Amino acid sequence: MEYPKSPVMGQMMSQPLLISSILRHADRYFGKNEIVSRRVEGDIHRYTYHDCHTRARKLANALAGLGVKMGDRVATIAWNGYRHMEAYYAVSGSGAVLHTINPRLHPEQVAYIANHAEDSYLLFDLTFLPLVQAFAPHCTTIRGYIMMCDRDRMPTDGKIPNMMCYEDLIEQHSDQYEWPLFDENSASSLCYTSGTTGHPKGALYSHRSTLLHSYASAMPDALNVSARDTVLPVVPMFHVNAWGLPYSVPLTGARMVFPGPALDGKSLYELFEQEQVTFSAGVPTVWLNLLTHVAQNKLSFSSFKRTVIGGSACPPAMMRTFRDQYGVEVVHAWGMTEMSPLGTASTLQARHASLGKEGKEAVLDKQGHVIYGVEMKIVDDAGNELSWDGKTYGNLLVKGPWVISSYFKGEGGDPLQDGWFPTGDVATIDQDGYMQVTDRSKDVIKSGGEWIGTIDLENIAMAHPAVLQAACIGVAHPKWDERPLLVVVKRPDAVVTKEELLAFFDGKVAKWWLPDDVAFVDALPIGATGKVLKNRIRETFKDYKLPTA
Amino acid sequence: MEYPKSPVMGQMMSQPLLISSILRHADRYFGKNEIVSRRVEGDIHRYTYHDCHTRARKLANALAGLGVKMGDRVATIAWNGYRHMEAYYAVSGSGAVLHTINPRLHPEQVAYIANHAEDSYLLFDLTFLPLVQAFAPHCTTIRGYIMMCDRDRMPTDGKIPNMMCYEDLIEQHSDQYEWPLFDENSASSLCYTSGTTGHPKGALYSHRSTLLHSYASAMPDALNVSARDTVLPVVPMFHVNAWGLPYSVPLTGARMVFPGPALDGKSLYELFEQEQVTFSAGVPTVWLNLLTHVAQNKLSFSSFKRTVIGGSACPPAMMRTFRDQYGVEVVHAWGMTEMSPLGTASTLQARHASLGKEGKEAVLDKQGHVIYGVEMKIVDDAGNELSWDGKTYGNLLVKGPWVISSYFKGEGGDPLQDGWFPTGDVATIDQDGYMQVTDRSKDVIKSGGEWIGTIDLENIAMAHPAVLQAACIGVAHPKWDERPLLVVVKRPDAVVTKEELLAFFDGKVAKWWLPDDVAFVDALPIGATGKVLKNRIRETFKDYKLPTA
Repeated sequence: MEYPKSPVMGQMMSQPLLISSILRHADRYFGKNEIVSRRVEGDIHRYTYHDCHTRARKLANALAGLGVKMGDRVATIAWNGYRHMEAYYAVSGSGAVLHTINPRLHPEQVAYIANHAEDSYLLFDLTFLPLVQAFAPHCTTIRGYIMMCDRDRMPTDGKIPNMMCYEDLIEQHSDQYEWPLFDENSASSLCYTSGTTGHPKGALYSHRSTLLHSYASAMPDALNVSARDTVLPVVPMFHVNAWGLPYSVPLTGARMVFPGPALDGKSLYELFEQEQVTFSAGVPTVWLNLLTHVAQNKLSFSSFKRTVIGGSACPPAMMRTFRDQYGVEVVHAWGMTEMSPLGTASTLQARHASLGKEGKEAVLDKQGHVIYGVEMKIVDDAGNELSWDGKTYGNLLVKGPWVISSYFKGEGGDPLQDGWFPTGDVATIDQDGYMQVTDRSKDVIKSGGEWIGTIDLENIAMAHPAVLQAACIGVAHPKWDERPLLVVVKRPDAVVTKEELLAFFDGKVAKWWLPDDVAFVDALPIGATGKVLKNRIRETFKDYKLPTA
Repeated sequence: MEYPKSPVMGQMMSQPLLISSILRHADRYFGKNEIVSRRVEGDIHRYTYHDCHTRARKLANALAGLGVKMGDRVATIAWNGYRHMEAYYAVSGSGAVLHTINPRLHPEQVAYIANHAEDSYLLFDLTFLPLVQAFAPHCTTIRGYIMMCDRDRMPTDGKIPNMMCYEDLIEQHSDQYEWPLFDENSASSLCYTSGTTGHPKGALYSHRSTLLHSYASAMPDALNVSARDTVLPVVPMFHVNAWGLPYSVPLTGARMVFPGPALDGKSLYELFEQEQVTFSAGVPTVWLNLLTHVAQNKLSFSSFKRTVIGGSACPPAMMRTFRDQYGVEVVHAWGMTEMSPLGTASTLQARHASLGKEGKEAVLDKQGHVIYGVEMKIVDDAGNELSWDGKTYGNLLVKGPWVISSYFKGEGGDPLQDGWFPTGDVATIDQDGYMQVTDRSKDVIKSGGEWIGTIDLENIAMAHPAVLQAACIGVAHPKWDERPLLVVVKRPDAVVTKEELLAFFDGKVAKWWLPDDVAFVDALPIGATGKVLKNRIRETFKDYKLPTA
């Protein structure tokens, strides 16, 4: 879109904001700083930003040799690791589009996405060979499959057409490569939504949106990324670019630690300690595993100082455990695929200094204030803006330079409402501008014409010592249309009855919000992005008969 | 400049980066946070970002009413205060160009600058009425003079044509104003260099350069601006936009404290304590006054945690005093008018954690690493890049989206060398990418064909307990062409001889760097931007006969 020019234009250097400039910067000014990776091969790999830049340029030459052109999509199915990082920069830096595919999707969905994106090549980790074998026959555009592993780990017959070894491929190429200059609004990367309903849709990021998001997300009141930190992104590089950390970390020169495929509590804990990680980021379900491991083995953290938790609302009980038991500062954040992903973060302001512990926690429990660049508002179903009183909830709308204006290839039509993107979240905003997600709009329980937010109910349940996980869903009710059912996973060896759990809600919410029943289950279904799949739970309990019905 | 577009462009929202969005953000999301100003009128004024935004919109309407159009230059001569802040946003936000004039310039220089800029209106503080009276008769383009003070402080006869009272002016206008959308490369503000040689030249910033600089400078390893901070910019808003703090502070929602005209040690200290300032920024000469006041009165700081020092090289002795005696963290930074101004900052990285106190200080003494966005290199006089070994010094060149490509109206021709801006500084860069300014190229002493950097010699002198300030200059020498003369201001009541001072250099520098003589003076001349004026000192000592001559 063109905007009017002033008769007097600034006289500053004209430089497009390009992703390649980040790795060049990290090499030139922080070239000795380390990237540590736990590899799929099992060992720990260490090299520097300088090495990463050298190999990324070899890969850029290799891709050019394979005929990859500006705008072509190149897919990855890979864990967080140094080769994936090289692909991030080689693909986007050369002007092609990095299409990160979530390996937790069904093979049919992967094939659908790869065909929809018209991917030209696929780079993938050893782990995902069976997945690639399953969907490759259905891919119509992929010309070659590049396995990211050492030569000696290549299978003799991968049963995939035109399979190459990543190391062989880049070895043949020079590290002399000049990153091209092009329009900063050119597409840089592509990520499909998890698509719990209907086909997945693609968010097509630009170099400009990625760089602005990197600057904004690195700021002190957002992810607060500094060269003093050792950063371990638990959030996967295969979904929403690991919240931008593969960009914001080298941009600041911080030391990077990639966990590879080992995301269980024990492996993560060992890596945190061994590499003296100071800062991490992930979704609540991953932290649950880590905290359970640490508690069961009576461990503590010797270097871990701060974590950002997002992707789903973080139960306050988890934040308190991190802070009070382990001295780890928690930043509750919110965003989504369509937002690159960062929208808000919850951090304190100068005038909160005088608040007591509980007062501060009440602020920090929310998803927080917007990061400069993003704007937000809450509206009713007719689009009227609602008041910021911390109580009124409505549909959360956002806009900003790292928010999508439409999906790739126009899927789903024009998603915007008067220039704003409807997030699908229901939220409150308080007088101080702190936003709190009440629910996903599709998860809200509609009881007698009123809304019941399920996140509040789940947070209360998870504060009970016997509860490991909880999900609240609406179940059909003859009189009220829907009523809440609490689905609970108990902690190992914990004993608690339905009645005790329901009594635990007394005085904590309005009476008519109280769940009508509790169902105990062994596990909750977790989706491709680490979120609890409520539609799956609703499916399981679709014929459940409430005692009140 | 146009760059090629990819066949696949990103599908993100198109939004120009405009200065108006910062204040709108501060109002909407941090509306209750305070701006505190010590006024020219003498009292302390308090209001909020919401109030600031309201009044800035009134001013934007007032300027439109006066016929100010997009691209027109509107000048200010004012201290750091809330009205100046309103002008920052009203002028740039409405598409006009904010021309900040340094009141420490001679009236003739001010008239030259105002005419060169073709300023349409001038907003000025009460303090500067005599200055305005002196240069107004020589201004050919200014159509009206707006005095930024309360109605009852307006003089009955200001002796200036078409003088208005700021408060009267904005009172007549509505606060309903929609900030216009326009091309982000439009000019936003204009600042002239101090022009110690020849006419001052204008750096014409754009909205885009200002916003990118704001993001970058707020990051943790740069100014590290957070909403947890109370920020007092000592650096003046009349020069290089107070290092961007009028943008980066509201962008983060931090509390702002403006010192007005009271920049003496006592007034500053009182304001720091009274308003519980946590973070400040300024040039070494200002801190010298503050530290002297604090030491003489045996005071300490109760809230002050961090300061950024730049503008001139900061003597290590001053950094140690801040850190060791007062517990104030010091970030040594470097930049210039032509760079918006921030280029580098000295902060530690993860791998410095194991260094001892002295090792850390050696890193922090330098001007530091570049801020992402800026690139730097050192070259010899033929333009060949020199090695990064911490010893080889050369001309420091920079580039980046907030570096000028040319001066306003093309003054001085094309300043660039192969696309790089020559800073006029001589510097070393070490293997870790940390830059240290050795000297201004025009201040380097050329002794027998070799260079002697004066900053090192001054830093050694200032580490002597009897020395308050020191400046080293080259004085004509029959054999060596030039030799160093150390010009010293002693601390009050301190006693020291030339011989004692020269002996203090033993073992600290190469023998041939030792100053040939010491001259004691009562004070050093300070220029309009707070820097020691070496050309003035050279003028004073131009016939000085060295004992070695």
